[in-house]
Amino acid sequence: MSQLMSAVCTMKKVFDQYAGKDGDPTTLSKKELGDLLRAELGFEEVSGKDIVLFEVNKFFAALDHDKSGTVDCTEYCTFVCTLAILMMDTKGGKGKC
Amino acid sequence: MSQLMSAVCTMKKVFDQYAGKDGDPTTLSKKELGDLLRAELGFEEVSGKDIVLFEVNKFFAALDHDKSGTVDCTEYCTFVCTLAILMMDTKGGKGKC
Repeated sequence: MSQLMSAVCTMKKVFDQYAGKDGDPTTLSKKELGDLLRAELGFEEVSGKDIVLFEVNKFFAALDHDKSGTVDCTEYCTFVCTLAILMMDTKGGKGKC
Repeated sequence: MSQLMSAVCTMKKVFDQYAGKDGDPTTLSKKELGDLLRAELGFEEVSGKDIVLFEVNKFFAALDHDKSGTVDCTEYCTFVCTLAILMMDTKGGKGKC
């Protein structure tokens, strides 16, 4: 499998892993998105107030484009695409990888 | 590094690998995009007429959203995102990985 196809399959694997935890396996609930953000993007707990919850709520509202109450694979891929652009779009394309 | 971050870094690595071949290392020329499509998505030569060139021209026109004559990292990430959605968005999210 090529590098690009393995990256796309990893994106899918991560989505399925978290979306499949409970309820509808084709969408991310707010809890599932929170788990994904903590594990995959390193959102740490901050002592006392769970600042992460506040950020998850904000993230969820931004990603749930059709206001369905869940994040589907299109909304998830758009998020990963935005993340990739942010990491790549530095002067000369020398991002943080 | 998490799975999701490694997928994003692979996306970047592939872009840098092909964009860096000649000219501006932050954009894909039509030739560089053709090389990427052949190697990463398995566009094979068809005996006689190079059908791939026709497809590369079509792909290039579709990806070069701002008509700059090159494909930048935002346009590339949008393409990969669309590819991921196509692979994931089958009934029950059971795509081709």
